[in-house]
Amino acid sequence: MSARIIATYHVTADAASIEARARGIAVEQSVEMPVEGIDDPWVLEGIVGRVEEIGEIAPGRYLVRIGLAAETVGGDAGQLFNMLFGNTSIQEGVELVDADLPDGILAAHPGPNIGTPGLRTRTGAFERAVTSGALKPQGLPAEALAAIAGRMAAGGIDLIKDDHGLADQPYSPFTARVDRVAEALDGVAARTGKRTRYIPSLSGNLDAMRGQIRHALSRGIAEFLIAPIIAGIPTFATLVREFPQAGFMTHPTLSGIARIAPPLFYGKLFRLLGADAVVYPNHGGRFGYSTATCLSLAANCRADWAAKRPCLPTPAGGMTTARISEMLDFYGADTILLIGGALLATRELLTQEVATFVDAVAAHRYS
Amino acid sequence: MSARIIATYHVTADAASIEARARGIAVEQSVEMPVEGIDDPWVLEGIVGRVEEIGEIAPGRYLVRIGLAAETVGGDAGQLFNMLFGNTSIQEGVELVDADLPDGILAAHPGPNIGTPGLRTRTGAFERAVTSGALKPQGLPAEALAAIAGRMAAGGIDLIKDDHGLADQPYSPFTARVDRVAEALDGVAARTGKRTRYIPSLSGNLDAMRGQIRHALSRGIAEFLIAPIIAGIPTFATLVREFPQAGFMTHPTLSGIARIAPPLFYGKLFRLLGADAVVYPNHGGRFGYSTATCLSLAANCRADWAAKRPCLPTPAGGMTTARISEMLDFYGADTILLIGGALLATRELLTQEVATFVDAVAAHRYS
Repeated sequence: MSARIIATYHVTADAASIEARARGIAVEQSVEMPVEGIDDPWVLEGIVGRVEEIGEIAPGRYLVRIGLAAETVGGDAGQLFNMLFGNTSIQEGVELVDADLPDGILAAHPGPNIGTPGLRTRTGAFERAVTSGALKPQGLPAEALAAIAGRMAAGGIDLIKDDHGLADQPYSPFTARVDRVAEALDGVAARTGKRTRYIPSLSGNLDAMRGQIRHALSRGIAEFLIAPIIAGIPTFATLVREFPQAGFMTHPTLSGIARIAPPLFYGKLFRLLGADAVVYPNHGGRFGYSTATCLSLAANCRADWAAKRPCLPTPAGGMTTARISEMLDFYGADTILLIGGALLATRELLTQEVATFVDAVAAHRYS
Repeated sequence: MSARIIATYHVTADAASIEARARGIAVEQSVEMPVEGIDDPWVLEGIVGRVEEIGEIAPGRYLVRIGLAAETVGGDAGQLFNMLFGNTSIQEGVELVDADLPDGILAAHPGPNIGTPGLRTRTGAFERAVTSGALKPQGLPAEALAAIAGRMAAGGIDLIKDDHGLADQPYSPFTARVDRVAEALDGVAARTGKRTRYIPSLSGNLDAMRGQIRHALSRGIAEFLIAPIIAGIPTFATLVREFPQAGFMTHPTLSGIARIAPPLFYGKLFRLLGADAVVYPNHGGRFGYSTATCLSLAANCRADWAAKRPCLPTPAGGMTTARISEMLDFYGADTILLIGGALLATRELLTQEVATFVDAVAAHRYS
C-alpha cells in the first residue's frame, strides 16, 4: 500500500497493557472507531494505523512507533498535526516525540522561505551568530517603542523582534508601530551604516495578518514574528506560501510543555511549515528545557532534510549578556542570540549594553 | 485604572518560593521583562500584571490569581489566549484553571450564534437530550459515508457529525461528502419525516473554511464541526461572526498540549468565542477526565453568563448505548449524547441500534 508517516510516541504503561495501548493510539490517530466495525478492505489495509514497533525505554515507559497513512493528511498543514497527535494529546502519559514523514508530505510543505542563508544575507551577519533584541514593554505607545528600537539599533544589533504580546492594541497599533520603528531604524542606518531589521508580531485572523504583512513590506520590513498555535497552523502555512519574500520567526506561546517533544515541534514541524527562525526557551532560563532538548532542537533546525532550507534556532527566555560566551560555545554560529528584558533593564545604558553584546558576539572564537 | 482580567492558576511550588513564582507569572503574562527596566508610570500601574491573591489549596500546591490589563487583549480572540496563558503554558507545574473577564472583553465576543435554543429548534429535540452519531471511518469514499449516514438517519438520530479526521482528502472531498450526505438525509427525511442534521468537519485555512461553509449552506447544511486549536482561534472566531446563521460544534483535538483546565477551556472560552456545542472526552471513556471536571464543564456551558447563549455540552470519546441512562442521569436533558464508534461497530444492525438509542433517550425520565 501507500506511504506511511511513522509517528513515535513515548508512553507510560505497564508491560501487560502496552500492546493494547499502542493499538489504541494507532486507532485513535486514524479511523477512531472499533476496527471490527470496518469492512472496507482498503480502509483496513491502507488507512487504519499500524503498530510498527514497541520498545521499553525505562521501567514502565515505552517507545511506540505507529504507521499512519499519508493519505489521511495529504498536503494540509493542520491535518498533519491532527493526525499526528490530535486526540492523543488529550490522553494521559503519552508524548509525541518524533515523526518520519514520507516524501509526498515533505514535498507538500515548502520549508523556510529564506532560511539561514536568507537571514544571513539580510542581516549581513556571516560566520557568527545573529544578534537580536526584543521590543517591550507592552503598553508603550508606538513612538516610545520606536525610540527604544532606535537606541538598540544604535548599539549595532542585527534584529529587533516584537514582544509576542504586542498585537494591534489601541495604544500601539501595528501599522503605527511599524511606521515609527521603520523611521527610527532608517535614521540609525543613515547615521551608522548598520541596518537593524525589525520583526513585528502578527496578530488577528488570516486577513488581518495579510494586511499587516503587506503594510510592513511596503516599509521595507520583511520578517515577521508569528505564534503558530495562536494564529492557527493553517494560517501560518498559508502566509509562508503567499509571501515568499517574507521571513518568519516562530514563537512558542500557548504551545505547552512536553506533550509534543520540542525538537520535533519547533525544530522539525515548524521548520517544515516555513519557520526561518525558531524561538524556544533556552535551558537555564525561566523555562525547564534540558540541554539535551535544546541541542536536539537546534540540530533539527540545521539538519540536511528533504531539501528544505535550514533555519536558525533562537534560544531565549531570560537570557543575559553574562551567558553570551557560554551560549555561543554551546550552540555555535548558526544561532540567533536573543536577549530581551535583560538589555532593556539597563535603561539609559541600553545602547552601550547592546554594543557590548554585539562586540562579544563578533569577537567570539568558536571552538 | 482600567478593568482587569482575573486569571486563576494552580501552581506547584514551596512556601518559600510561591510569592516570587506568582510575581513571575504576573510579569510573564503582561510585560515579560524586568519591571525595574520600565519607567512609564501608565505601564507600571496599568499594564504590568498584578498578583491579586495567593492561597494554599494543598501542600505544595497554590491557587494564584493574577490581574491582567484588559487593554493588552482588546477584542482579539487569539490575544485572549496569548495573554491568559501564552508563555506560562510552557512552564512546569502551572495550570490555567479559570478566568474572570471584564465586561469589555465579554462584549467583544459574540458567544454562540444559535446556542442551545437554536440547536433545539433546528433538531426538533425539546425537553430531552439531543442524539448524535459520528460519520466514520476515515478512508471511505463519500458515497459509502453517505450510505452510513442514511442508515443512521433511518434510526431517527438528530445529528450526525463528521469524524474530526475527515478533512478534504481526495478519497472523500468536502464538497462531494456534503452533497452525497445531504442527498442521503433528504431521502430519509422524505420517507420518514425526520430530518437528521449533518455536521461536516471544516479543514484547511480560513478561506478554505469559508468556501466549505458557503457550499454547505447552499445545501441546507448549517452546522459545522471545527477544531479551534488546529484551525486557529482567530479563524474560529472569524467564522462565527461572518456566518451568523451557522452553528458550530467545537472539537478538542490537539488542545491537550495547552494544559488549560477543561471547564474553562471548552466550557467558557470556546463558548465565548461562539461554540454552540462543545465536544469533550466524557469520564469513563478513552480519556482521563474526572466526573467533577465533566460536571463543571457542563455547568459552564449552561450558566447564565454575560447574556451569551448557553451551549450544549457534548460528552464523547468511547461512549456506548449501555451508558445512555447513566449519562442522562448525570448530565440531564441539556446535553448532546454522542455515540460514535460503538454504533458503527454494530454494522448491519446500525439502523436498529440507532433506533434503540433514540428510543432510550426519548423514554428517559430525568430525575
